[in-house]
Amino acid sequence: MADTGSLLAAAVGPEHVLTGDHVPAEYGHDESLTVPARAPEYVVRPTTAAEVSAVLRVAAAERIPVTARGSGTGMSGACVPRAEGIVVSFERMDRILEIDTANHVAVVQPGVTLADLDRRTAEVGLCYPVRSGERSATVGGTIATNAGGMYAVRHGVTRHHVLGVEAVLASGETVRSGGRYVKTSTGYDLTQLLVGSEGTLALITEAVLRLTPRAGHGATVLAPFTAPEDIARAVPRLLAGGLDPLALEYVDMLTMAALTADHEFGLGIPEQVRDTALGYLVVVLEEHSTDRLEADVEAAGEQLLSLGAADVYVLPPAAARRLIHAREHAFWTAKAAGADEVVDIVVPRAALPALLAEADAIARDSGSVITGCGHAGDGNVHLAVFQPDRDRRDAVLRRLFRAGTALGGAISGEHGVGRAKKPYFLDLEDPAKIRLMRRLKHAFDPDGILNPDVLLGQA
Amino acid sequence: MADTGSLLAAAVGPEHVLTGDHVPAEYGHDESLTVPARAPEYVVRPTTAAEVSAVLRVAAAERIPVTARGSGTGMSGACVPRAEGIVVSFERMDRILEIDTANHVAVVQPGVTLADLDRRTAEVGLCYPVRSGERSATVGGTIATNAGGMYAVRHGVTRHHVLGVEAVLASGETVRSGGRYVKTSTGYDLTQLLVGSEGTLALITEAVLRLTPRAGHGATVLAPFTAPEDIARAVPRLLAGGLDPLALEYVDMLTMAALTADHEFGLGIPEQVRDTALGYLVVVLEEHSTDRLEADVEAAGEQLLSLGAADVYVLPPAAARRLIHAREHAFWTAKAAGADEVVDIVVPRAALPALLAEADAIARDSGSVITGCGHAGDGNVHLAVFQPDRDRRDAVLRRLFRAGTALGGAISGEHGVGRAKKPYFLDLEDPAKIRLMRRLKHAFDPDGILNPDVLLGQA
Repeated sequence: MADTGSLLAAAVGPEHVLTGDHVPAEYGHDESLTVPARAPEYVVRPTTAAEVSAVLRVAAAERIPVTARGSGTGMSGACVPRAEGIVVSFERMDRILEIDTANHVAVVQPGVTLADLDRRTAEVGLCYPVRSGERSATVGGTIATNAGGMYAVRHGVTRHHVLGVEAVLASGETVRSGGRYVKTSTGYDLTQLLVGSEGTLALITEAVLRLTPRAGHGATVLAPFTAPEDIARAVPRLLAGGLDPLALEYVDMLTMAALTADHEFGLGIPEQVRDTALGYLVVVLEEHSTDRLEADVEAAGEQLLSLGAADVYVLPPAAARRLIHAREHAFWTAKAAGADEVVDIVVPRAALPALLAEADAIARDSGSVITGCGHAGDGNVHLAVFQPDRDRRDAVLRRLFRAGTALGGAISGEHGVGRAKKPYFLDLEDPAKIRLMRRLKHAFDPDGILNPDVLLGQA
Repeated sequence: MADTGSLLAAAVGPEHVLTGDHVPAEYGHDESLTVPARAPEYVVRPTTAAEVSAVLRVAAAERIPVTARGSGTGMSGACVPRAEGIVVSFERMDRILEIDTANHVAVVQPGVTLADLDRRTAEVGLCYPVRSGERSATVGGTIATNAGGMYAVRHGVTRHHVLGVEAVLASGETVRSGGRYVKTSTGYDLTQLLVGSEGTLALITEAVLRLTPRAGHGATVLAPFTAPEDIARAVPRLLAGGLDPLALEYVDMLTMAALTADHEFGLGIPEQVRDTALGYLVVVLEEHSTDRLEADVEAAGEQLLSLGAADVYVLPPAAARRLIHAREHAFWTAKAAGADEVVDIVVPRAALPALLAEADAIARDSGSVITGCGHAGDGNVHLAVFQPDRDRRDAVLRRLFRAGTALGGAISGEHGVGRAKKPYFLDLEDPAKIRLMRRLKHAFDPDGILNPDVLLGQA
C-alpha cells in the first residue's frame, strides 16, 4: 500500500507536496498574536477542484486532518494546522476566471487576492466592495471568515457578495451552489452556510462574486470630538439622514496618535483641536458625480457639527489615503506597540458607547491598556489589549466578550472564532446552539477531518 | 394518557386548538394553482415561543407532522399540511415588538404582515425594503421562502434584511441566532440557513429585521420597446451606469394588455406606440431629494432611449401607482385569465432573452400559451403557463426548469420549491447536494416532523 506522501503526490504532482523539514514556517501560522505556530506534516498546492477532491479522498481514507490556507492573513489562528495534518494551500489557484460585465459578477479561484480583484474590476468600472484591511487577503480566506472591512456600512459584508461557490466536501464530492443571480429560493442555501465556516465544512474551490459599479468620486471627512459619547450618538443620526457613507470609522485618541506617529503623517488640523480631541469620526463619501459628492460632503459636515464635532476637515486626497491606509493597518501599529491581543467584538451600533465604557472599566480594573478603533457604522470595534500576563489577559478577554454578548452583540464581527476565541465561544454560546452546530458539522464532515480544532473542536 | 388534542389544548389553551370539522378550509391551502388543498387534523394558534415549543414537544413525542402557516399567500404549497398533521398558525403572533431607530432594526413576531410593518416604519422615516407582491404576506412566511419582490434590484432579498431570529427546533428547544448587527463571524450562520428553508428546519418565532431610511421622492418611468431583445440588453447597461433603480421590471405585451384591462386603467401613451410595443421596462426611481430624483429621471430617460426604447414616459403618480399595483398583482390577472401554473425561474440577468426565447419555443412546441413579466434587474421572470392538460403541462414545466438551470439559473427565485416544484427540484438538482441537504434536515429534525412533504420529502 502506498504511503500518504505518495498518494498526495499522485493527487497534485510530487513537486507540489511539501513535507517534514521542507515545509516553510509560514504554513504553520497566520497573524494571530496568541495562537502558537505549528508546522503540518504535509503542504499540498493543488491547481484544480479535481486535485482538491483527490487530496480530500486521501485524507478521508486515512482520517488525516485538513486545513485550508489562503495567504495567512487571518487573525484568529483558523489556518494553523494540526501537526499530523495536511495544509491545502490555494496559492496556485489564484486565477480570475471571468469578469462578467453583463451580470456584474466575477468568477474566481479562492487564491485570488483582494488587491488583484480590485485591479481587474477597476479596468471595467466595477468593484468588489469588500474592503478588508489586508489587501493581500485571498477571496477564499475572506469567505471562510465572512470578512467585513471598512465599506460594510454601505455595501454589507462578504456574505452579501458571494452569490455562489464550488466546494469540495470532506468525502471528496464536489458540489456547486448558487450562481450568477442574487435571488433564489431553491433549497437550503449552502453558499451562505459555507460563508464564515472557517474551513470546517468544505473547501471552496471557486466563487461567484457580486460586483457593483465603481463610483469615481470620493472624499474623506475627519471630525474630531471632545466627548466620546457624542461620537456614538452621532452615528445612527448620520445614517438616518440618508447619507449612505462608504465608510464610517471611529478612531480613539490613543490610536490616532499611534497611527499618525507610526505612519509619519500629520492630519493637517490645528494643534489645539488635536490636543482636546478624545476621538475621531472618519467619514468616507463616494458618488458617481462630483456635484453629488460636494453636496454630500457639505451635508455630512453640517450634520457632524450639529452632532457635536469640534470641527470638520475635508482631508486633501494624499492625507486621506494615508489616514485610511494607517487605519486599515492599525493592527500592525498595535502589534508594533506591543499589543498582546486584538479582538473585534460587534454590538448593536447604538451600544458602542456602552461597550467602550465597559472596556475602559475592564482596563482600569485589570491594570491593562485597551485602545480602540472601529467600524462605527456597524458597531464593530477593534480593541487592542495590552496585558502580557496570560491569565489576566484571559480574564480581560472573557469580560470583554461577555460585555459584548450582554449588549446584544457577538464575539467576532469579522475576524472569526478560529482557535484563538474558541474557548470563549464555547463557554458563552448557548449549549443548544453548539449541539446544533456540531450536528451540522457532522452532516458535512462525519469523520471530522476538516479543521478539527477550529470553532467547535473539542481539543 | 392524554390524547393529542388535550395535550395541544394544554399547550396553547383549548380555545386555540381547532380540530376535525372545526378547521376552516383556509388552513388547508395557499395560493398555489396546482397543489390540492388538504385539511390538517389540528390547527393551533400560539402566542409565544414557549407555546410553540410546547406544541413541538407534543408533536415530537407523537411524531406528528407540523406545518407552519403565516397568511397563506405562498405560491408553491409549502404550507399545505399533512392530513394527520398540525398546522401552527402564527396569526396571533402578529406584534411589532420594537422599532429601534438608533440601530435601524425592527423586532417582530412572525405573523406581522408586510403592510403593517410598512405603516409602522413609515411613521419614523424608515422602511423594510422587501416588497413582495402580496402585502398581506407575513414576515414569517417571507423568511420561509426568502421572498424577493420588486425592490430586490436595489435592496436585495429577504435574507439580506434578516439579521437574527428566535426559532424553535423540532425538539422544542428554543435558540436565538444573530442580533441587531450586520457583521458577524461567530459560528455557523443559523439565521441564513433558516431563511428559505420553507418550514422544514425550525419554526421562527421572532425576527430582527434590518431597516433602511425611507427615501421620500419617487418617480416611475415607462419605456415601451419594439424589440424584446433590446430590453434584456438594456438592463445591465442601465445598472452599470450607477443608476441604482428601486425597481426594474419587465412586462411583456400580453401581460401589459391584461393588466391594463383587468385593472381598468390606461397608460396614457399614444395608441400607435402601444400597438407596436412588444414589451415594456418599468423603472422606479427613488431619492432623498427632488433635485436628485429629477436628475435620475432625466438620466434614465436618456439611457433608455439610447438603448432602444421607442419612447419614454414619466407616469403621473396615480397611473404609476395603478401600474405597480397591477404588476404586483399580475398573478391574480393570470389566474383570472385561466393560467394553469405560474413559475418564477431565475437566471443570470443577461440570460433573460435566452430564457424568454426558450419559453416561446416551448409554448409553440407544446401548444401552450406562456406569458411573462419579471424582475428584469434580477433575472427573475414570472411565467404564466396556460396548458390545462396535466401531463403536457408537466412536460412544459420540466423543459422550462431545465432551460433555466442550463442557463445557469435556478428553479425558483422567490416563490420556493414547496410541494409544487419538489419533483422537478429533486430531479434536476445534483444528487450529492440533495443528500447533503437531507443530512442538514436530519441535523435539525431527526424524526422528520417539520413539513415533511416539502422540498426534500420522499412523498
